[in-house]
Amino acid sequence: MSGEVIGKGRIEAFSDGVIAIIITIMVLELKVPHGTAFADLLPIVPVLLSYALSFVYVGIYWNNHHHLLQAARGITGPIMWANLHLLFWMSLIPFVTSWIGETRDTVAPVASYGIVLLMTAAAYQLLATMLARHDGPGSQLGQAIGTDRKGTLSLVLYASGIAASLRWPDIGLAIYVAVAVIWFIPDRRVERVLSDERP
Amino acid sequence: MSGEVIGKGRIEAFSDGVIAIIITIMVLELKVPHGTAFADLLPIVPVLLSYALSFVYVGIYWNNHHHLLQAARGITGPIMWANLHLLFWMSLIPFVTSWIGETRDTVAPVASYGIVLLMTAAAYQLLATMLARHDGPGSQLGQAIGTDRKGTLSLVLYASGIAASLRWPDIGLAIYVAVAVIWFIPDRRVERVLSDERP
Amino acid sequence: MSGEVIGKGRIEAFSDGVIAIIITIMVLELKVPHGTAFADLLPIVPVLLSYALSFVYVGIYWNNHHHLLQAARGITGPIMWANLHLLFWMSLIPFVTSWIGETRDTVAPVASYGIVLLMTAAAYQLLATMLARHDGPGSQLGQAIGTDRKGTLSLVLYASGIAASLRWPDIGLAIYVAVAVIWFIPDRRVERVLSDERP
Amino acid sequence: MSGEVIGKGRIEAFSDGVIAIIITIMVLELKVPHGTAFADLLPIVPVLLSYALSFVYVGIYWNNHHHLLQAARGITGPIMWANLHLLFWMSLIPFVTSWIGETRDTVAPVASYGIVLLMTAAAYQLLATMLARHDGPGSQLGQAIGTDRKGTLSLVLYASGIAASLRWPDIGLAIYVAVAVIWFIPDRRVERVLSDERP
Repeated sequence: MSGEVIGKGRIEAFSDGVIAIIITIMVLELKVPHGTAFADLLPIVPVLLSYALSFVYVGIYWNNHHHLLQAARGITGPIMWANLHLLFWMSLIPFVTSWIGETRDTVAPVASYGIVLLMTAAAYQLLATMLARHDGPGSQLGQAIGTDRKGTLSLVLYASGIAASLRWPDIGLAIYVAVAVIWFIPDRRVERVLSDERP
Repeated sequence: MSGEVIGKGRIEAFSDGVIAIIITIMVLELKVPHGTAFADLLPIVPVLLSYALSFVYVGIYWNNHHHLLQAARGITGPIMWANLHLLFWMSLIPFVTSWIGETRDTVAPVASYGIVLLMTAAAYQLLATMLARHDGPGSQLGQAIGTDRKGTLSLVLYASGIAASLRWPDIGLAIYVAVAVIWFIPDRRVERVLSDERP
Repeated sequence: MSGEVIGKGRIEAFSDGVIAIIITIMVLELKVPHGTAFADLLPIVPVLLSYALSFVYVGIYWNNHHHLLQAARGITGPIMWANLHLLFWMSLIPFVTSWIGETRDTVAPVASYGIVLLMTAAAYQLLATMLARHDGPGSQLGQAIGTDRKGTLSLVLYASGIAASLRWPDIGLAIYVAVAVIWFIPDRRVERVLSDERP
Repeated sequence: MSGEVIGKGRIEAFSDGVIAIIITIMVLELKVPHGTAFADLLPIVPVLLSYALSFVYVGIYWNNHHHLLQAARGITGPIMWANLHLLFWMSLIPFVTSWIGETRDTVAPVASYGIVLLMTAAAYQLLATMLARHDGPGSQLGQAIGTDRKGTLSLVLYASGIAASLRWPDIGLAIYVAVAVIWFIPDRRVERVLSDERP
């Protein structure tokens, strides 16, 4: 159709650029200590831990995004905007990461972190759904996404994490870590269908 | 001719890199709140809104730039400089975005934002015109650009927005948002001509 | 030979990434004014002018670097390091640009700016010479670089600019602007030889 | 097998993007002097030297990473995570570089710098081992990595440097410089095997 003229290569390259910047600028929040003792690193430990968690999250998204676009047949204008929408929410991860890092486990930062993760996950689901719909139900992607239990589960978990964080920020954070562990494994569904087709 | 030795691929890759950085460094202006309450996010809301508007603007330019270069046949030295000229004005968007975000709807920031948008739009028009002239009037791009009503209209709207902002900054901002909505839809003219040629 | 296993594509992509970042992070030095009046932009004007000059310089290097690598036949380990050496000196351009922008036309900043430009130019000459030697005197690049008058001239001009800036910073700056104008035109020598070969 | 669907091209492009940002954002730590005299540059000299050392280190990793992936046959999900793990430790180099630069040769900063270098080197070894295992012992990479004396030697040297820095930071730094010199030469083993195969 008339909307399919966007090259997959350039949308991948642009997304890679933005994701590479997002994953790297978070380290700029690690403020150099003024002292010269090992103890001066202590206040940085929570910042470093929140950086590590967000690094894993952005890495997971890069990985899944990579699989998703690789399986996709074509990109339309609306799909390109769904992709930019995903990048917008991802770009807020460094901001909420810093807030958690500087204020430790307090309600508003942990809940805000969860909200950004939830919106990012929802934006990813939207992109995946639009790509699958565009390729059609009989396509690789249509079958792979099909009954997306992991995606739905993580949306539910993020919402639970946000709710929990309003009372117990630590439990909220623990739930976010759990979702990261679930997603750590690349999307086997897509991989399986792909490798079935390539004998 | 002798000026056509510049590879389209590398100019696209370089532009993508610069645009990816422009769209992402704006988020660095979101200063982490010192407090730990949700209310501490309130002063950030206008910064976030101006960031979202500029994100959409840069996304639109990336998208249209992508279509433009995809349709172009060849790049000459002057065209490469016209492209860098466009990137220069785009690179000022984060600066005026921050100014608006920090000072809200006051005259000088809103007018400056409009001036940068106007110069970026004019630089885009110049690049498109040079590419169309290089390809010739019978080319895809020559036909597609042809009577560029949307481009001319947006230049007029930016100028109106700047003029309005000198008295009513809110109306200036509203006009900029309106132009973003107009451009939100990718350049159907180029897409249509392209898809006619690829049966 | 054993040293030629480095892919030209990836060295170009990496250089593009670094140059895109260099050209864009300079804009981070444009500090958002605290006031909301047009007059609050006045202190930023010299910063903006030095940014524009450096933007043109980095654009020139990107352009010439692009032509150089396009004409080159092969990359060896030492050539890769000559390329990183060039990027190192280019990466200092944002630093000296900010110093000039903040202190205006005073001796040390203008002279330091010239020294960085001189070292960058010398690093570029070294890279070009190594590439030409690797390809051999009968190659495109060997012929094109041949008697490199413009390169030698600009080294002399930078040295003159540095010397002049010790007494009259304005004249030093004027000489740097003059060199930018000379280099603004892409390297016709390389282009000419290339287009002769591609009939 | 089912895990091999990740494109080498995109993992290279993403790594290049992250490494390009890492190598360039270090220069943001060069704070512009407030004064306008050459003497105002003096406090920046140690920052500049630590920047130059880290620039060489990141350049070495980019170069070796390039050779490694070029020789690799396939990328699996775990290998992709080993690559992100390497990028994580590399991303901490700007942080420890700034700490050294600002505090000069004191114990904790120099030891921390060594720890980050050690972890980066261990992450690189892990990635190389996983790639070689995936390709099999008879592959190019399996043979090239084989008895990796230089890799093991540098791990020992980093550990010695860290130990030495606890007492004599200068000696620790000298050892890190020595490792950089050893690695400065690209991995001839990989290159040799590769060029044997390409007659």
